[in-house]
Amino acid sequence: MLRITDLDTPSLVLDLGKARANIERARQKAASLGVSWRPHLKTHKCVEVARMQMATPEGPATVSTVKEAEEFFKAGVRDMIYAVGIAPHKLPRIDALNRQGADVKIILDNLAAAQAVSAFCETNHTEIGVLIELDCDGHRSGLKPADPALIEVAAALVDGAHFLGVLTHAGDSYNAKSIEEIEAAAAREVAGANEAAENLRKAGFPVEIVSVGSTPTLCCSKAAPGITEYRSGVGSFFDLVMAGLGVCRVEDIAVSVQVSVIGHQQEKGWIITDGGWMAMSRDRGTASQKVDCGYGLVCDERGALLPGYWVSGANQEHGIISRRDGGPIRLEDFPLGRRLRILPNHACPTCAAFDAYFVTEDNERVCARWTRFNHW
Amino acid sequence: MLRITDLDTPSLVLDLGKARANIERARQKAASLGVSWRPHLKTHKCVEVARMQMATPEGPATVSTVKEAEEFFKAGVRDMIYAVGIAPHKLPRIDALNRQGADVKIILDNLAAAQAVSAFCETNHTEIGVLIELDCDGHRSGLKPADPALIEVAAALVDGAHFLGVLTHAGDSYNAKSIEEIEAAAAREVAGANEAAENLRKAGFPVEIVSVGSTPTLCCSKAAPGITEYRSGVGSFFDLVMAGLGVCRVEDIAVSVQVSVIGHQQEKGWIITDGGWMAMSRDRGTASQKVDCGYGLVCDERGALLPGYWVSGANQEHGIISRRDGGPIRLEDFPLGRRLRILPNHACPTCAAFDAYFVTEDNERVCARWTRFNHW
Repeated sequence: MLRITDLDTPSLVLDLGKARANIERARQKAASLGVSWRPHLKTHKCVEVARMQMATPEGPATVSTVKEAEEFFKAGVRDMIYAVGIAPHKLPRIDALNRQGADVKIILDNLAAAQAVSAFCETNHTEIGVLIELDCDGHRSGLKPADPALIEVAAALVDGAHFLGVLTHAGDSYNAKSIEEIEAAAAREVAGANEAAENLRKAGFPVEIVSVGSTPTLCCSKAAPGITEYRSGVGSFFDLVMAGLGVCRVEDIAVSVQVSVIGHQQEKGWIITDGGWMAMSRDRGTASQKVDCGYGLVCDERGALLPGYWVSGANQEHGIISRRDGGPIRLEDFPLGRRLRILPNHACPTCAAFDAYFVTEDNERVCARWTRFNHW
Repeated sequence: MLRITDLDTPSLVLDLGKARANIERARQKAASLGVSWRPHLKTHKCVEVARMQMATPEGPATVSTVKEAEEFFKAGVRDMIYAVGIAPHKLPRIDALNRQGADVKIILDNLAAAQAVSAFCETNHTEIGVLIELDCDGHRSGLKPADPALIEVAAALVDGAHFLGVLTHAGDSYNAKSIEEIEAAAAREVAGANEAAENLRKAGFPVEIVSVGSTPTLCCSKAAPGITEYRSGVGSFFDLVMAGLGVCRVEDIAVSVQVSVIGHQQEKGWIITDGGWMAMSRDRGTASQKVDCGYGLVCDERGALLPGYWVSGANQEHGIISRRDGGPIRLEDFPLGRRLRILPNHACPTCAAFDAYFVTEDNERVCARWTRFNHW
């Protein structure tokens, strides 16, 4: 029997029960809204977790890199949206997957990209499904729902480039200051997608897919008329940023980084560990929230929160744990070699620091090691 | 012939001439101080770069993880210091390397660790070289040079645990506001190491190694009497944090991330790329410096700086480039698919996002692909 505390440190621990519950919550929420759920695989990049999320072994799913599409296709996933605006040089890799039986759809938000995809399809006698990306909150890419360019871009999809619908992501919901703000973001996301779909239909374009989503807006959405699918990813694991937004509890966070105590600075109330920012990532997403969690919150060997402690600082391979109130540390509580588990600000970059999840059902024994990949 | 602009994006580009010059500068600076240079391998984790840095194929070198020690030992490196306070459960891996012919030295700063290492050596009939870590600037681990515990810890190294000397790292120099402050940090680092060495010698402990260093303090050190070696790492590549400190020029930065333009938000003056924080890392080390570089500065296809631009925002797989003055972007200057090269805030986490360096000597052709590793 391999115990979690037998593992080398730092190591990434996945609480299977919590992940299952989080995934079930997203699935039920999408069902209650009457839409399909197209889970995002970018947070975990792990076949086993993808299979827990997806309705069937073939999908549907969302990916953020061509490599994700390639790796998950090897594992049997077919129905994917590559949800980052296409760079034309990536089309051959997408096309190669589709010729092998995948159905990877792409997104774009400009005329030059639509023309490049159409030209690629014509030259290569191939077909690619395309969604037009919409901007529903000004946070990043996409055309505004009322922008006349929407019609122009759809019309430029010819010669095998098939216009399938619209897609938007309410990414600004990550910056919300209240549940009411997230609810408003969710309503805007749904309204913007419907407005664009309506404008396209009026211009004669059939709109098959109306895709929206982010973890906060899926959690807080009250209605999704006209929407065909919700996408969300980080909510399968959750993290401190999501807890800070109020869409999950700290106890719902399914991933943590196991670290070891390597020393102390007693005068300063510091416990030094081997979990630095190379393990936790440099993400400081809670810094702009009501409660700044530093580089993470601190749990005991079994994953139970130790209230009052945080990772107040980090270097490449060192973490500094201290009391939030600046008070002294009882050294006997944190002896050399003691294992602790750190909850991450942001699950996506923290998980990306590791090549595998050590999976547990009882927070004591390792029941599986699930590999993950990175890169592009 | 493979051109850099033929590569997929995002991809990591290493300008070999700049790396060579940076490495030569560190080597000459250490020589001018009359000390050995023990380069840190943690920034690159790449055998080819290590060989450029090290005085011999066997070292000396510094590593930040046991995995680095294992990987570089496979490539012939023997003389290494694992410069993170030892967690006792890592001793078997260190010992296994040393039994195969490596000479991996460890560091520690507390009595419990010294006792654990001595007990391990006694139980396993083995030997390990140990340095005591010193705190010269209050930024992290280590004993104060005047702390009587220094003698107590040295005395606890018995039964094959060999006390070899002292080691300190002036990490607070990263927060300096002027070259004068770095010079002062360099002087404190040297003085602290000598004070500790002297106290140990007075107590009867021979001090063979007196190891100091950080890239800023090596760059700015004026004298190093009593010091046997300098350690430094990021200065082989340099980055925007180091340029902000004034210890290198922006033009000296040897690594950049090649990205592609995937869209625009013309009203906002935004160019959208496929280089988000998964490629650049979440490091915002320049945020607290005089010039905040966002998620990086922007260069053209050949690596020449485009003045006035910065990566003003980033999501997981999206970068947002804008003019620092908020002015409009000429879209014809940044067409869909154009390749750009982004200089990183911090070379260590940015390089860690990739599995290989695409090496160039002329900033046009790829002359080699050098793999790197991660994890622990």
